[in-house]
Amino acid sequence: MIKNAFKITLFTIICNAMIAINAQETTSSKAIETKIDQIISSLTLEEKVAMCHAQSKFSSPGVERLGIPELWMSDGPHGVRGEINWDDWGYANWTNDSITAFPALTCLASTFNPKLAKDYGINVGEEARYRKKDVLLGPGVNIYRSPLNGRNFEYMGEDPFLASKMVVPYIQGVQQNGVAACVKHYALNNQEVWRDKINVVVSDRALHEIYLPAFKAAVEEGKVWSIMGSYNQFKGQHCCHNSVLLNDILKKDWNFDGVVITDWGGAHDTKQAALNGLDIEMGTGTDGLTSSKKNAYDYYYLANPFLKLIKNGEIKEDILNDKVRRILRLMFRTNMNPNRPLGRINNQEHLDIARKIAGEGIVLLKNEASFFPINATKKITIAVIGENATKPMTIGGGSSELKAKNEVSPLDGLKNRFKNATIIHAMGYASGPSAYGRVVPSSLDANKLKQEAIEAASKADIVLFFGGLNKNYLQDCEGGDRTEYKLPFGQDELLNEILKVNKNTGVVLVSGNAIEMPWISNVKAIMQTWYLGSVAGDAIADVISGDVNPSGKLPFSFPKKLSDNGAHSFGELSFPGDGVNEYYKEDILVGYRWHDTKKIKPLFAFGEGLSYTTFEISNLDSDKKAYSKDESIVISGNVSNKGNVDGAEVVQVYIGKLNSKVARAEKELKGFQKVAVKKGENASFKISIDAKSLSFYDETTADWNLEKGDYLIYIGNSSASISKKIKITIQ
Amino acid sequence: MIKNAFKITLFTIICNAMIAINAQETTSSKAIETKIDQIISSLTLEEKVAMCHAQSKFSSPGVERLGIPELWMSDGPHGVRGEINWDDWGYANWTNDSITAFPALTCLASTFNPKLAKDYGINVGEEARYRKKDVLLGPGVNIYRSPLNGRNFEYMGEDPFLASKMVVPYIQGVQQNGVAACVKHYALNNQEVWRDKINVVVSDRALHEIYLPAFKAAVEEGKVWSIMGSYNQFKGQHCCHNSVLLNDILKKDWNFDGVVITDWGGAHDTKQAALNGLDIEMGTGTDGLTSSKKNAYDYYYLANPFLKLIKNGEIKEDILNDKVRRILRLMFRTNMNPNRPLGRINNQEHLDIARKIAGEGIVLLKNEASFFPINATKKITIAVIGENATKPMTIGGGSSELKAKNEVSPLDGLKNRFKNATIIHAMGYASGPSAYGRVVPSSLDANKLKQEAIEAASKADIVLFFGGLNKNYLQDCEGGDRTEYKLPFGQDELLNEILKVNKNTGVVLVSGNAIEMPWISNVKAIMQTWYLGSVAGDAIADVISGDVNPSGKLPFSFPKKLSDNGAHSFGELSFPGDGVNEYYKEDILVGYRWHDTKKIKPLFAFGEGLSYTTFEISNLDSDKKAYSKDESIVISGNVSNKGNVDGAEVVQVYIGKLNSKVARAEKELKGFQKVAVKKGENASFKISIDAKSLSFYDETTADWNLEKGDYLIYIGNSSASISKKIKITIQ
Repeated sequence: MIKNAFKITLFTIICNAMIAINAQETTSSKAIETKIDQIISSLTLEEKVAMCHAQSKFSSPGVERLGIPELWMSDGPHGVRGEINWDDWGYANWTNDSITAFPALTCLASTFNPKLAKDYGINVGEEARYRKKDVLLGPGVNIYRSPLNGRNFEYMGEDPFLASKMVVPYIQGVQQNGVAACVKHYALNNQEVWRDKINVVVSDRALHEIYLPAFKAAVEEGKVWSIMGSYNQFKGQHCCHNSVLLNDILKKDWNFDGVVITDWGGAHDTKQAALNGLDIEMGTGTDGLTSSKKNAYDYYYLANPFLKLIKNGEIKEDILNDKVRRILRLMFRTNMNPNRPLGRINNQEHLDIARKIAGEGIVLLKNEASFFPINATKKITIAVIGENATKPMTIGGGSSELKAKNEVSPLDGLKNRFKNATIIHAMGYASGPSAYGRVVPSSLDANKLKQEAIEAASKADIVLFFGGLNKNYLQDCEGGDRTEYKLPFGQDELLNEILKVNKNTGVVLVSGNAIEMPWISNVKAIMQTWYLGSVAGDAIADVISGDVNPSGKLPFSFPKKLSDNGAHSFGELSFPGDGVNEYYKEDILVGYRWHDTKKIKPLFAFGEGLSYTTFEISNLDSDKKAYSKDESIVISGNVSNKGNVDGAEVVQVYIGKLNSKVARAEKELKGFQKVAVKKGENASFKISIDAKSLSFYDETTADWNLEKGDYLIYIGNSSASISKKIKITIQ
Repeated sequence: MIKNAFKITLFTIICNAMIAINAQETTSSKAIETKIDQIISSLTLEEKVAMCHAQSKFSSPGVERLGIPELWMSDGPHGVRGEINWDDWGYANWTNDSITAFPALTCLASTFNPKLAKDYGINVGEEARYRKKDVLLGPGVNIYRSPLNGRNFEYMGEDPFLASKMVVPYIQGVQQNGVAACVKHYALNNQEVWRDKINVVVSDRALHEIYLPAFKAAVEEGKVWSIMGSYNQFKGQHCCHNSVLLNDILKKDWNFDGVVITDWGGAHDTKQAALNGLDIEMGTGTDGLTSSKKNAYDYYYLANPFLKLIKNGEIKEDILNDKVRRILRLMFRTNMNPNRPLGRINNQEHLDIARKIAGEGIVLLKNEASFFPINATKKITIAVIGENATKPMTIGGGSSELKAKNEVSPLDGLKNRFKNATIIHAMGYASGPSAYGRVVPSSLDANKLKQEAIEAASKADIVLFFGGLNKNYLQDCEGGDRTEYKLPFGQDELLNEILKVNKNTGVVLVSGNAIEMPWISNVKAIMQTWYLGSVAGDAIADVISGDVNPSGKLPFSFPKKLSDNGAHSFGELSFPGDGVNEYYKEDILVGYRWHDTKKIKPLFAFGEGLSYTTFEISNLDSDKKAYSKDESIVISGNVSNKGNVDGAEVVQVYIGKLNSKVARAEKELKGFQKVAVKKGENASFKISIDAKSLSFYDETTADWNLEKGDYLIYIGNSSASISKKIKITIQ
């Protein structure tokens, strides 16, 4: 009856069987690799190439005829971004994409609490999963090199050890939801100015010792499933298709088995993209519908141009197969894993975790005469002054901008907590509404705001000045760096005026960067609160009221002036470069390594942070005095809480080589532990450090080198506050 | 250290445990019901109410804090509709939503092949699943009452038995993908004119015997997971919240355990919606962002107004809980079922199945002197005339409109298949571009088109006239009915002109409805091809070339003139009603029941359809002559293929009661079987019919009544072509 081709061939059956992976099988990576090989062998060249580039702003295609799903990505890392249009950067105006905004990663780093990093990851991963995202574009672990970098707030500070310890549990937390973390931006993307092209010239030693360890930990310990290349260049190649970074280091040395994704628009060359380790190209300028070209995604570097090179034999199909294998592996871990949970968003537990992270991340920098905490039972008048008391900080900042379901402002947080107080509010200054292009209020308006603030301050028992940056362009925001180290918008001048009428003034800084503080000796207290997300105001009120005893520590140094920072000590060639090249002349001496080694005292040191109680760190010792290279150094001791409130202290262990054959930092963080101690009680701690971690990267052998000889162990509660030094020997 | 509320309570753990259902557990409906009860007990009133209405054009919310997913729906039933904007009817312009368009359901019904209905369901369900849809809004089983109804093409014809046999496997096929079918439109939505308000007055007997059986089969045999209420009214209540239809019949008598969803905008009253069996309200006029109200979905009948009535005690919470229980049950069957497959789209197998259904559904109505098949090896000139030779028919028609990845036009299908022929094409007539509001070309243009067609016809060996309807407003399209029974756009006149220059003309009708054929005796052949989707042209070429031997049978009667149709025999009160009420005065005598009983010969009869071969149905007998009420009547016989090509015949068994105490149709379809027979061979068949199915609906007892006494069994290959009659007795 029917002569021609209705061939329901064996192929159908094979394909269905291939994709139907049951729960049992997915636990076996060998079974998955076999499936992946089967799938690859049944894909056409065109299908495989299609998987290597975007189909929309935030998705890349699967293979629809075989039921291989699309990959859906979302900006992170502080929460899951609002839905973006298919083909342009506008918001899609959905109403189901309001989420929990978690504190910025700088705040997470300040907690010095890896357990909270795990909680962060689990929770933000749950939100990504519920929002049907397969890849969450975060966390970021670019090292804080200069306080001007516009994206520092998205990263985990200046120390590679701290960043490594925090990034691993974050990744594990995200990925237990069947959502891939995508650690970024690999690598050397330490500023926004000229980020699309600047060629970073850095020693191999600084690269391996400072800029790569957190990525290495993400891969080797965190087992991260994807990584995002950075915009900038290294050794003259863009990092999204950089032979050394991707092929040699990431995929060969570190055995990374996941997917390399470009930053959006980070690809620039088909051959390099094909051959130098890139797997998925996203965000290239020639987007689809908004472009004059009809199928503009076909013009991506890894689209038709790639296909052509394979077809004409210039690039081997195996190169393509490797990319597809990685993408399919990612899919079996995420959207093809039937066991992944369903996720959830905006639940109370997420808000609670966000508040806990925020509370533990806030850093008390100065607290003269116990200015903080402020007793919430008293009938006092508090003047809350400053734009940042009310400015929503989940908005702005670039790709990490979030559509928070709710955001409690500091003012509202204080009003909720200080019911007995009379809270008066004055904006004091205004930074203007614009995200790209600063709009400064007219001098008339500025004067009016200032006068209102002075009047409010003069009437109050206590002044709380909420200043800092504003997360708009040039102020902690992607796409541009800060142009000056001091506070913007006339805040210094305003603060001086306020101090003239009320000395009882505390400063609450909302920023993701260090700032200059010319008024430091005149204010009673300083609290660094970062960007705290949905629960910002509540968390700040928790600490101000004393409901939460601060335990956060600075994850980067605050230099007194910009030129005290290592990167800024060598002129513009060192930062931000000349538009073509940038030379990391401070080399390994980033952050406190610079301050310590060069004996330049910072305003506030790495690891610094006060408490409402007093801790004493004592009984410090190492388990031995001499170690072989395979042993661990165990530091033990005691933390006593001498004050009247419960609290937590971060014990920090730094180690420096004595008489090294190479230039070294005076000391480097090698261990830390956050120790909770109830008032009047003691707690012991043990910190274990692999002797191997004392190695330096030896450029002569291109390998790690553990020098024998004497080392000095520094134990304290900041890089500048050392309780005891212990000399040990590596034999 | 931390005094206040960071309560990671037991609740979290309980909730996670609740939702994490493993594969083992989901197979037990008892375990699921227990989980559902646990979930309901943990939901707030507001959360539960939110689940009962839309959050966007095509989604309803889950409970985000608990990870209960949203429900995503898509128009069907011929494929998965393109993505629609969040909050208005515009297309979202995504590029991943081009799909396989399957033949219209009328074509599926014409196959008389339930196996193909299963394949259809499996395949369209796979596409829905890949597109991340949880509910596919189809199939439609409203009975074909009048050839004017604009949506007949989406339904399965005029016979409740045929529709029942086809709808059940369709549903099973869709749902095996973990996607809910949503059978629609329940009930009595048999026209588009005044569909939003018309109150259908119909006897209980006609309701139960004609209009409900396919829905009943969908529920009781197909186990459909959701059902869509219709726009119209019955007994003065809108069918989306109709106490008799939903509470009494669907949920009580049929034990439906799924979800009742409104047609979009089909709800009109909160109390009725709450109390009369509706579960989810969609598409009500006060949509979100396009409305002046900020959260317009809160104003849905089942939103805040519903909440208010529960809070003030007018409606019991149990009413709400029942709705939520049904919705959660649907979720455990779909988006909370970890075992559901991944789906796939646009694969060759889907196209092959679509082509097979199309090929088996095309009905050959007339074939004088073996006009068809046309020998494709011959070097002849074929004039292909008519707009429908090239008009894309996946576009238009209303909510069933599809964004087909590809659509082969009849002209292209013929060109591909008839490589040796010279194919000349003339449009002949033009229906205008508009979907809502007919644009007729100017008389000058019309004349030009006509002249071109006549000229083409005069040069050709064979003329194929592709006419019919155009799937725009008033021509087989949702939202309006046809205004006349004859062909529109001057096709009759054009055809007459063509016939003057070339008698060797066959007509290929592209429509979902019967039409008047004043030229019937002058054309050589007539083929009814429906709307065939992606592969339309290929499937038509398959049949025209003889690659496929037609085996489709009409699923509805073609009356000679409109007034020969039952619904149109009683004036406008019977169709389309007076704007308020409509009286189904033909009662049970719908379609062939009318023609048979009233002895009004149709142009083409229900079940009619020719083949390229000749079949003889013989050796017909019943296994017994007398049956008790619990027995089955088994009809056996033989089909011989007397011709020179393989083919398939649909043996149809009709049964009528002799001397019934109530008015009855002369005969009703009670069994059929499609029998494939190779040329020159025989095949036997057996058709089993439950004696109970001979019951009529007895309004005096409101129950089915199996009359004892004599019945006449009619066996043939159409309702008008009976090979043998057998008298049996029910004792």
